[in-house]
Amino acid sequence: MYGHQARRELLPSYPQFFHSGLGAIVTDCDGRDYIDLMCSWGPIILGHRYPDVEEAAARQRVLGDCLNGPSERLVELAEMLVDTISDADWAIFAKNGTDATTGCLTIARAHTGRRIVLAARGCYHGAAPWCTPRTLGTLPSDRAFMRYFDYNDQASLDDAVRQAGNDLAGILITPFRHVEGEDQEMVLPEFARQARESCDRLGALLMIDDVRCGFRLHRGGSWEPLRIPVDLSAWSKAIANGYPLAAITGAEHVRNAANSVFLTGSFWTNSVPMAAAIATVTALRDQSALPAMIAAGNRLRNEIVKQAREHGQRIRYTGPPTMPYMTFEADTTYERMNVFAAAALEAGLYLHPRHNWFLSTAHTPEIIDRATAATQQAFVAVTAHFGDS
Amino acid sequence: MYGHQARRELLPSYPQFFHSGLGAIVTDCDGRDYIDLMCSWGPIILGHRYPDVEEAAARQRVLGDCLNGPSERLVELAEMLVDTISDADWAIFAKNGTDATTGCLTIARAHTGRRIVLAARGCYHGAAPWCTPRTLGTLPSDRAFMRYFDYNDQASLDDAVRQAGNDLAGILITPFRHVEGEDQEMVLPEFARQARESCDRLGALLMIDDVRCGFRLHRGGSWEPLRIPVDLSAWSKAIANGYPLAAITGAEHVRNAANSVFLTGSFWTNSVPMAAAIATVTALRDQSALPAMIAAGNRLRNEIVKQAREHGQRIRYTGPPTMPYMTFEADTTYERMNVFAAAALEAGLYLHPRHNWFLSTAHTPEIIDRATAATQQAFVAVTAHFGDS
Repeated sequence: MYGHQARRELLPSYPQFFHSGLGAIVTDCDGRDYIDLMCSWGPIILGHRYPDVEEAAARQRVLGDCLNGPSERLVELAEMLVDTISDADWAIFAKNGTDATTGCLTIARAHTGRRIVLAARGCYHGAAPWCTPRTLGTLPSDRAFMRYFDYNDQASLDDAVRQAGNDLAGILITPFRHVEGEDQEMVLPEFARQARESCDRLGALLMIDDVRCGFRLHRGGSWEPLRIPVDLSAWSKAIANGYPLAAITGAEHVRNAANSVFLTGSFWTNSVPMAAAIATVTALRDQSALPAMIAAGNRLRNEIVKQAREHGQRIRYTGPPTMPYMTFEADTTYERMNVFAAAALEAGLYLHPRHNWFLSTAHTPEIIDRATAATQQAFVAVTAHFGDS
Repeated sequence: MYGHQARRELLPSYPQFFHSGLGAIVTDCDGRDYIDLMCSWGPIILGHRYPDVEEAAARQRVLGDCLNGPSERLVELAEMLVDTISDADWAIFAKNGTDATTGCLTIARAHTGRRIVLAARGCYHGAAPWCTPRTLGTLPSDRAFMRYFDYNDQASLDDAVRQAGNDLAGILITPFRHVEGEDQEMVLPEFARQARESCDRLGALLMIDDVRCGFRLHRGGSWEPLRIPVDLSAWSKAIANGYPLAAITGAEHVRNAANSVFLTGSFWTNSVPMAAAIATVTALRDQSALPAMIAAGNRLRNEIVKQAREHGQRIRYTGPPTMPYMTFEADTTYERMNVFAAAALEAGLYLHPRHNWFLSTAHTPEIIDRATAATQQAFVAVTAHFGDS
């Protein structure tokens, strides 16, 4: 196995191969069930094998999936995204989140005729040579016109913008700061506003990478509540509840540039993932879906924070309720977190010791209570192993 | 619509949206049926909705598709590819053909610690900034260490190799030359041998881009009959009969480099496309599958060549029987070919006027006879419009 799904990145007791998934439960190849706090690293937002999504996919599948061009599903989905996402006037579809972020850069450079793109230091935007976090096999020239600033640091962004000057094509940014090993930080509204104003002043594009966060913060785009418009958004992961799909949505003034660049892939117009996405977005437009997921995330956080206090463990639990990140204070080599994760797994809860977790609408209060019964065991194990902190 | 599936790249009478596909027939959204000579630009190699593939996908789907890691299907498929493809000792999976070709470059650079990759001028290796044929929105730095030679030109390859010298990471090449608007050319064995020897001499890797051709020339890799081993192969398109999947296969001595680079994507371990791929490769391993497809391609070529002669039209019909490319002599602006394609479409045959066509195992002799009834009409139209040539 390769990539971040390799068990070698986890602990010896973690399963490498999975047999099945249903709702908030995954089953490994040895037949062990776990409550799933990773949701396939984000894609599963309605729970595994969500009936409406599977039925919509099945209806399309008996017609066709990969044809000489798209089916009507492409139009329906594009119209639905334009209707749902506040800053979307059009949509383009692809397969990987990286396709979407790379496409945003290409469109921004075509739109502006400029080269430099700013991104926040340490933030993840995909696995292509220009953005991969592990650079072995890539070249410095792959990121020759990437420049970096510190997330939520207005002076740092200001410096980067000034240095890019009239060669600034755009700013690419995640909705909030989620960097492995560091506290998650929600974006400061004044920082987001500064990014918008910098782009406006220089004629550059503001691009939001909503691949990981999309639909878990706000169904209309993660910065919708801030009322700070973005020019381009990259989507993938949760958009089709596990079916392979990515999308770029954009503002009207960027449409011509998007039309003029070369974006294509053999499976980019496949119809089954689009049918699944229509059903997924329909489910997420239900007024109660996201509030229920957020309530479940709060229930999880409140109970874990309480358990930590009761065990005398100092933890940091950061980020939005639907995408939390937990570490132990001063646990820089993850010793405590590894014991915590291994004990949680033993007690039937699958989580990652160094990556943010993901909730889905299948995480009911009853599921959360079963999850926190496992974290209770995990705190017992940490305290037994290390004492309190 | 965007990309090469946009109807604006075809003719006004071509449908933009498709309703369904079955076997060798596609149906557009107005309910018109066509014999399909594009096979979704390559992926459909057993015909649309091939029963064994659909059943294998369905069996996996009721378990799960996108999980926290792969299912056993990944191991089964990897072992099957290693068993089927002569130069494969391991396999890695992805979604797009571009993921596979980009991954090959990354692995070659990691393996050699060098930068320069040679590719044949005009050949297509994907839509990423380093290889896209339309460069708007990309930067010269994206291809700073790409160098080009002329396909089948030994002196040109020799020059490029010499100039790269000790910075040569590898040579990336398609199994045969297929460049839009130009005759297709099978690789000259001595040219392939020279590429292999150059790599051996300089410690570089020979990489074959089998994304478009894979399984249509030889089931063991397109250069298997030449007995010229390759170090890395990129696969996609036909590997899962339309399900989104790509793969890199490689030789044992490149395994460590492949293990060490960062390759990942949200849907890269999805199990349903892998189940579909197992069924697809199983069907293609049947001794009669590829010979029957080749025979169908020969039947198509022989009849079209005969029709052209009877109508006094000078055509060029090049490439392997399963991936033919047809042009009219001196028809540089595709005037005759556009009339030909529009008339074929009108007669119920879907082909592309400027891109190679694809056959599948669903192209039975009876289907080919129906297709050539349509090309007969198309030659009548060309001759009526332009006279003979």
